[in-house]
Amino acid sequence: VRGIPEVRAGDDVAALVAEAAAAPGGPGLLDGDVVVVASKVVAKAEGRAVPPQDGEDPDRARRRLALAHEVLVETPGVVVVRTPAGHVSANAGIDASNSPSGDLLLLPADADASAAALREALRTRLAGGGDVGVVVADTVGRAWREGQVDVALGLAGIPALRDERGMPDRDGRPLSVTLVAVADQLAGAADLVRDKAAGVPAVVVRGSGSVGRGDGRGADLLRPPAVDLFPHGRGWLARRLATGAGAPARPGPPTAEERALVAAAADGARWAGDALVARDGPAAGIGLACLLDLGYRAELQRGPGGYLVRVG
Amino acid sequence: VRGIPEVRAGDDVAALVAEAAAAPGGPGLLDGDVVVVASKVVAKAEGRAVPPQDGEDPDRARRRLALAHEVLVETPGVVVVRTPAGHVSANAGIDASNSPSGDLLLLPADADASAAALREALRTRLAGGGDVGVVVADTVGRAWREGQVDVALGLAGIPALRDERGMPDRDGRPLSVTLVAVADQLAGAADLVRDKAAGVPAVVVRGSGSVGRGDGRGADLLRPPAVDLFPHGRGWLARRLATGAGAPARPGPPTAEERALVAAAADGARWAGDALVARDGPAAGIGLACLLDLGYRAELQRGPGGYLVRVG
Repeated sequence: VRGIPEVRAGDDVAALVAEAAAAPGGPGLLDGDVVVVASKVVAKAEGRAVPPQDGEDPDRARRRLALAHEVLVETPGVVVVRTPAGHVSANAGIDASNSPSGDLLLLPADADASAAALREALRTRLAGGGDVGVVVADTVGRAWREGQVDVALGLAGIPALRDERGMPDRDGRPLSVTLVAVADQLAGAADLVRDKAAGVPAVVVRGSGSVGRGDGRGADLLRPPAVDLFPHGRGWLARRLATGAGAPARPGPPTAEERALVAAAADGARWAGDALVARDGPAAGIGLACLLDLGYRAELQRGPGGYLVRVG
Repeated sequence: VRGIPEVRAGDDVAALVAEAAAAPGGPGLLDGDVVVVASKVVAKAEGRAVPPQDGEDPDRARRRLALAHEVLVETPGVVVVRTPAGHVSANAGIDASNSPSGDLLLLPADADASAAALREALRTRLAGGGDVGVVVADTVGRAWREGQVDVALGLAGIPALRDERGMPDRDGRPLSVTLVAVADQLAGAADLVRDKAAGVPAVVVRGSGSVGRGDGRGADLLRPPAVDLFPHGRGWLARRLATGAGAPARPGPPTAEERALVAAAADGARWAGDALVARDGPAAGIGLACLLDLGYRAELQRGPGGYLVRVG
């Protein structure tokens, strides 16, 4: 959707998108379309811009604001955090570019609510009636992979995931692990036809067949920290022990496999009930660190006979 | 591209795709198209199926094969590994479904080479001449996010990434961090129009404007382990210490910020050159664990005056 003007606080994004889509050369808007809107324009319209403090560099201000969240990784250049809504993002998704005033732009406060409001407003503008889906998209980096992709921060009118688990494959065997992140892939597909510099903040995805198949939420795409296999980045352990930040949240007890692994890591320590008995101080420190790394709460105690690490 | 028959070892995938695309109702194949092919059919054609050992359950066989790689996370249900090509994937991307024989299907040995061969074969079939891009796509899970997406395991004829860093935005300010994972988003977009059960192993993406803009490789999309902020999953530390697997590979020395963090984490330890001097055994064990978690090599020594942890 080309020709959307610069969005300002209080603007009606649905009207701007619908009018630009209906302009000559535009894609129009039809029943079943999914409209992917950049979180940036939604945030601008919702007045989520905040000025830096007096004399503060925008990058420093962004870092300060990002550090107010749960920090997963902190490096001199970037802070990866989990927002209160559970979204994991570099610099908390706070944008310091594209703002003539130098203001910082926070993510929408409730991207699902933003998506739902956009959907309602766009539906009323459909000439022949019907329904549309909306994705509010954010640009994120990934673990292990270079480059950023767009993902669904909030959504309305479509499912977040397509569950193919248990469905038969071509040979009639059940598909084992296939839970497709449809909303994220819609966001990524939309990103293919716009570049940030050209300012194409909304894209119509036609023919995905996802509208009316469910009404998902952004949270459907978030893996709960307690079951995430990759909860923390490099240096989390030191930060946890030095500052107490990002306390482990996994319910115990450890599995038998984990107990054996920790005992072996801690130089032949042994388990007595829910406590790891270490033969010396270094082994106890290592045992404590391994349990924290596994996501459990653990505490080191010095007893009369040596060192104990208690879980939970 | 519907109507592609079941692929068998030795089949000409390019011919099968081109013929199905040219069939009535098919998308055809035009200059500038990107053909996204599921790694599974490429692997099948390349004879990458391996039988399980006598009496071995397919899931157990898959686990055995996956554990032969660098293990990032091991749980009873899933093993996340890094393949020799650097691709991080659950169960090494080994597929145990969709095989009538019960065979396991490994990933293509060199997905870039597979993509390049497909591209050459498809180009010769373009009626009006011109060029196509090819993506060999694999389905992967993500840290923090639920659901799987398709990413580019190998590619040919298109760039892997679109670098917008330093380009001016709408207000003339340079865009700071925008390196778009184009090939991954092409793979994800293609996944939107197929479901695994229906067996649509190839998708034509038209109008992406990416063909002829560069010739990327799958490795362009892999973050080198030494600069990845999220190198390891839950339990890596215990596994590293218990088995020696996944040795740290980050070149030292630690940054000043990291040194301060580790000293604080290790209960007020202090640095003397490249060694951390700990006041007691538990602190030394914790310091060692924190340095390993940061990605450095570290070694614990007991000296006459107490405990030392040496880096490097």
